[in-house]
Amino acid sequence: MRRQMSRARRLHKAAQQSKVAKPVGPKVSPLAPVGGFPMLPIVKGVSISAGAAGVRYRNRNDVMLAVMVPGTVMAGVTTRSSTRSAPVLDCEAKLALDVGGEVGAAIVVNSGNSNAFTGAGGFASVKAVAQAVADATGVPEARVFSSSTGVIGEALPHDRIVAVLESLNAGLKPGAFDAGARAIMTTDTYPKGSGREISLGDATVKIAGIAKGSGMIAPDMGTMLVYIFTDARIDQPQLQTMLRSLTDTSFNAITVDSDTSTSDTLLVAATGMAGPQIMPGSADADVFREALSDVMTDLAQQVVRDGEGATKFLEVRVSGAASETDARKVAMSVANSPLVKTAVAGEDPNWGRVVMAVGKSGAAADRDKLSIWFGPHIVAENGWVSPEYREDLGAAYMRQPELVLRVDLGLGNGTTTVWTCDLTHDYISINADYRS
Amino acid sequence: MRRQMSRARRLHKAAQQSKVAKPVGPKVSPLAPVGGFPMLPIVKGVSISAGAAGVRYRNRNDVMLAVMVPGTVMAGVTTRSSTRSAPVLDCEAKLALDVGGEVGAAIVVNSGNSNAFTGAGGFASVKAVAQAVADATGVPEARVFSSSTGVIGEALPHDRIVAVLESLNAGLKPGAFDAGARAIMTTDTYPKGSGREISLGDATVKIAGIAKGSGMIAPDMGTMLVYIFTDARIDQPQLQTMLRSLTDTSFNAITVDSDTSTSDTLLVAATGMAGPQIMPGSADADVFREALSDVMTDLAQQVVRDGEGATKFLEVRVSGAASETDARKVAMSVANSPLVKTAVAGEDPNWGRVVMAVGKSGAAADRDKLSIWFGPHIVAENGWVSPEYREDLGAAYMRQPELVLRVDLGLGNGTTTVWTCDLTHDYISINADYRS
Repeated sequence: MRRQMSRARRLHKAAQQSKVAKPVGPKVSPLAPVGGFPMLPIVKGVSISAGAAGVRYRNRNDVMLAVMVPGTVMAGVTTRSSTRSAPVLDCEAKLALDVGGEVGAAIVVNSGNSNAFTGAGGFASVKAVAQAVADATGVPEARVFSSSTGVIGEALPHDRIVAVLESLNAGLKPGAFDAGARAIMTTDTYPKGSGREISLGDATVKIAGIAKGSGMIAPDMGTMLVYIFTDARIDQPQLQTMLRSLTDTSFNAITVDSDTSTSDTLLVAATGMAGPQIMPGSADADVFREALSDVMTDLAQQVVRDGEGATKFLEVRVSGAASETDARKVAMSVANSPLVKTAVAGEDPNWGRVVMAVGKSGAAADRDKLSIWFGPHIVAENGWVSPEYREDLGAAYMRQPELVLRVDLGLGNGTTTVWTCDLTHDYISINADYRS
Repeated sequence: MRRQMSRARRLHKAAQQSKVAKPVGPKVSPLAPVGGFPMLPIVKGVSISAGAAGVRYRNRNDVMLAVMVPGTVMAGVTTRSSTRSAPVLDCEAKLALDVGGEVGAAIVVNSGNSNAFTGAGGFASVKAVAQAVADATGVPEARVFSSSTGVIGEALPHDRIVAVLESLNAGLKPGAFDAGARAIMTTDTYPKGSGREISLGDATVKIAGIAKGSGMIAPDMGTMLVYIFTDARIDQPQLQTMLRSLTDTSFNAITVDSDTSTSDTLLVAATGMAGPQIMPGSADADVFREALSDVMTDLAQQVVRDGEGATKFLEVRVSGAASETDARKVAMSVANSPLVKTAVAGEDPNWGRVVMAVGKSGAAADRDKLSIWFGPHIVAENGWVSPEYREDLGAAYMRQPELVLRVDLGLGNGTTTVWTCDLTHDYISINADYRS
């Protein structure tokens, strides 16, 4: 048994010590994208504003308002949790009934309180906020989509939000994505944004997205709020179908701690102010789909990079599974395993725990056909450690902040890729402290 | 947000500081049963011995040998992992073919190396050890059941075990359960034993069991080895049926970290040397079944009490589910949730996370019919926090080391109970350090 002080413990001690000297506020994740919040394109027909309602936090913005022009198409995907929040249920109902873009649309989001498990009062709060948005902006209440993120089970002090809506409406401006992304943060250590510009015919079409989330992230989306804006011209059913399919390979392909939030919401607003009508099956649809996929995957990975306490970003690639379903079972079993995640934190190339995670996944697996790679190094094959494998190379590889772990089951054509982070002392500290 | 130093962090700091002064070796779990290893009854027809083969550990015993008289019936349950170890596969084959008690039986167990994912050589090691046991004891090799626990993926140095078998055989004696339980420990902080005596007619029948396990514990048994000995007279099919059914409510009802080992094995040896023949459906069968259930549940709970880094023992009781399957889904979702387990570590009555875990379980649930209790305190009902609930009472309750968390779904008659522990800094330290 190796009993020297582990990397995890060293990191934790260092964090403890640095806390004495540092100013208040969590340090930014070491996995945050370099260069800070990206330059996002101005999306025609979208204005954004942020303000401080004091729902729970002090001295920071905690409400975002986005208003879209008439003609805007809305699509969305929400958590499948059976205890999902009032705003989520309201979004679902409005998306299902939405008649399309004859009038404008709005999105209002608060941080600090999730308005989840708040009884009948929760719906009254949603209604009050939506009505106030309608009054301030002129968008009909049926097209005001709201989200709340933060503590569960406390009544949302919606009057505080209502009180700032006039001023938020007055402050609306194009391209204020950075301010919006900051207002919706909870335990996030940095604001998350991603954008793309594509050419469709002679026109330039833009996509800009923001997201929040760092704990309670899991398949089916975790405490994650994502808002994507585009000026593309696309009909609602096509956008909705595209969105649902891309969600499986982006936001449903990440996990921080296997826990699933009651509030997850992903909304896309397409204002239709740029480019040609995108027809299903067209080359334009392919180009738009790929750009949307890029934005969604980038935002999903940014959420994992802000995983609570994360120090390593781990991509788990599974191939050779008997089916896609089996590939996903194996990938999520590996990505959710506390023993794999603590080994990654400790920079230990502990492939035995990967074998364990494959074994418990419920997917078809044959020990003697299984192969495992840590980055470029083949570790296990033919039912045992590979003769090529050298522990020092594995250990050196594990010291990098960005890791790829590959598993081939040798049985079929099922493949998938998921992303996760390591499990560290700081995850424990954050979650034994913070009331979410 | 409360940002004072959490209990989890305080515990961790204290552990860090105490490590400087303390002697080598992990401290005993604060949840260990008081009074140390229990007095276990002498089971007629069973002899046990322990010795030091130096498989991996130094200066401690790491091999246990148990030999049973002719007439002994063997039953067993093993892990369902698809990457289970060579000794597990060997046990399964021998149990399936076992012709019963005309000859004796033996169990040999080593700690330090699990002989899992060791290719064809793994089976050769099992064979070599079993043959050496047969040579030393006279028990036919087909009735020598072996287990190995410890590091995955390293060749078992079986010659070291073979070398001590003659001396182990010479040291066999009745009732040496304590020595056996200590020899099979890995990250365990205390040896685990449980026994019962029952009266069947005029006879006294005894049951004594030992177990090891503390990490990688989950449904389908974790890294858990359990050996139960009885002098009851019972036929193999009846014992096997009883064992499988009782496993669901004992060893399959505990979880430490949702990870499942490649090595789990539960064996029961019934020597038939005491009491009347136990007939299926008889009153004697009921009495024996209940005593066996007690021993199994006690050992299972002792494993959780030794959960890596555990400071709290948590019983999760679910009722009112639409089915037994749904009850189990909810209970395991709560018991495996890192956010629930870190809240318990932080002594935070964070019922919102319980709502979240119910929601993600996949079981039918209706927010407005859900009720949640922390011990005697009703926390949530009718879709919101209960008007009776007072946070100070919840917080006081959470400070106890033994907790009961109750969830009623208000939908049907499905019930279940599972046991788990909290998730602390020490879990991270142990698993980022230790190569399992």
